[in-house]
Amino acid sequence: MSSLGLHERTFVALVHHPVYDKNHKVVATSVTNLDIHDIARACRTYGLGGYYLVHPVGAQRELTRRIVAHWKTSEGMAQNEDRSAALSLVHVAASIEEVIREIQDSQHAPPLVVATSARSRPPVLQSHEILNAVGATDRPLLLLFGTGWGLVDEWLDKADSLMSPIVGPTDYNHLAVRTAVGIILDRLFGEPRHNCGEQRL
Amino acid sequence: MSSLGLHERTFVALVHHPVYDKNHKVVATSVTNLDIHDIARACRTYGLGGYYLVHPVGAQRELTRRIVAHWKTSEGMAQNEDRSAALSLVHVAASIEEVIREIQDSQHAPPLVVATSARSRPPVLQSHEILNAVGATDRPLLLLFGTGWGLVDEWLDKADSLMSPIVGPTDYNHLAVRTAVGIILDRLFGEPRHNCGEQRL
Repeated sequence: MSSLGLHERTFVALVHHPVYDKNHKVVATSVTNLDIHDIARACRTYGLGGYYLVHPVGAQRELTRRIVAHWKTSEGMAQNEDRSAALSLVHVAASIEEVIREIQDSQHAPPLVVATSARSRPPVLQSHEILNAVGATDRPLLLLFGTGWGLVDEWLDKADSLMSPIVGPTDYNHLAVRTAVGIILDRLFGEPRHNCGEQRL
Repeated sequence: MSSLGLHERTFVALVHHPVYDKNHKVVATSVTNLDIHDIARACRTYGLGGYYLVHPVGAQRELTRRIVAHWKTSEGMAQNEDRSAALSLVHVAASIEEVIREIQDSQHAPPLVVATSARSRPPVLQSHEILNAVGATDRPLLLLFGTGWGLVDEWLDKADSLMSPIVGPTDYNHLAVRTAVGIILDRLFGEPRHNCGEQRL
């Protein structure tokens, strides 16, 4: 077994391509500053091993590196040391395949790749089932999140598992990806809930 | 008892004043477009009764109204109907006191006011304790979230209860408020977790 806690060998990839736009066309979305910051802060809160921004366009990867580099300077550290700590988790990659290779190299085992999607496509696993599956091995865990209108079907098929969509008491499921990452990390690694089995109001 | 489900009589207030800045000075922060959108989408996902942006400066409230109004136009609806549905939950108010009065008027009962803070200040309640407390009454629930470096101590004292801070397996607790709102709504109104009592990995 790996000596790392499961959260320490868990990685988030924010995928800017291949994802759908609202017309179900496969596109590359733009990197946004807040996706970098908010998701890095969530990954740091839950003690993850790293956070990959995936973009096939070199200029977008370079932009991401420049934003992250600012927070490594003495100026950035003085501005907000906590932000620098979060952004130190950020890596960039040109493709999901590259992320998988990098994690395999650094962790010495291929990651279990779990795709997330707001579109329900059984079979899906609940967070505790993902934890059990990965916890039984010493493999790292890679969670794929799509920007835009979500990961293409091809990656929902190619992933080892698909996580159950986040649903509340309504049929509306259009969360910002920044919010979805936080909720899923909390479901995986946050405090156990005390209300299991109780009736929801 | 109210005929509304608890989530339907729950309200989020995003407070831009009075909050601390990083030097513990009491300030008013600026409204940001993404706080409006992300949090409205989370409130809509979990079926809440409404989402208040609190700002003492009239021009900031007017800016918020203009952003929301765009999504009520036929152009906004055509652009993204789901976004319009979320933003229909948004209200603006000049102060926390005004939010409390408005909720009391619309719900015919004073809200139970629960403050959130990343700073631990016992006694704090877990999400299931909040649900039990409000579920035993027909009062609405108002969740206060501070922007900047968080709600001032005065409001942590004045609130009826303080919710336990979001912590993961690390001592880092600097989530974006957008992320924190999503996690807390999921803890309150998301699917019950199946891993209660199980050992976390």
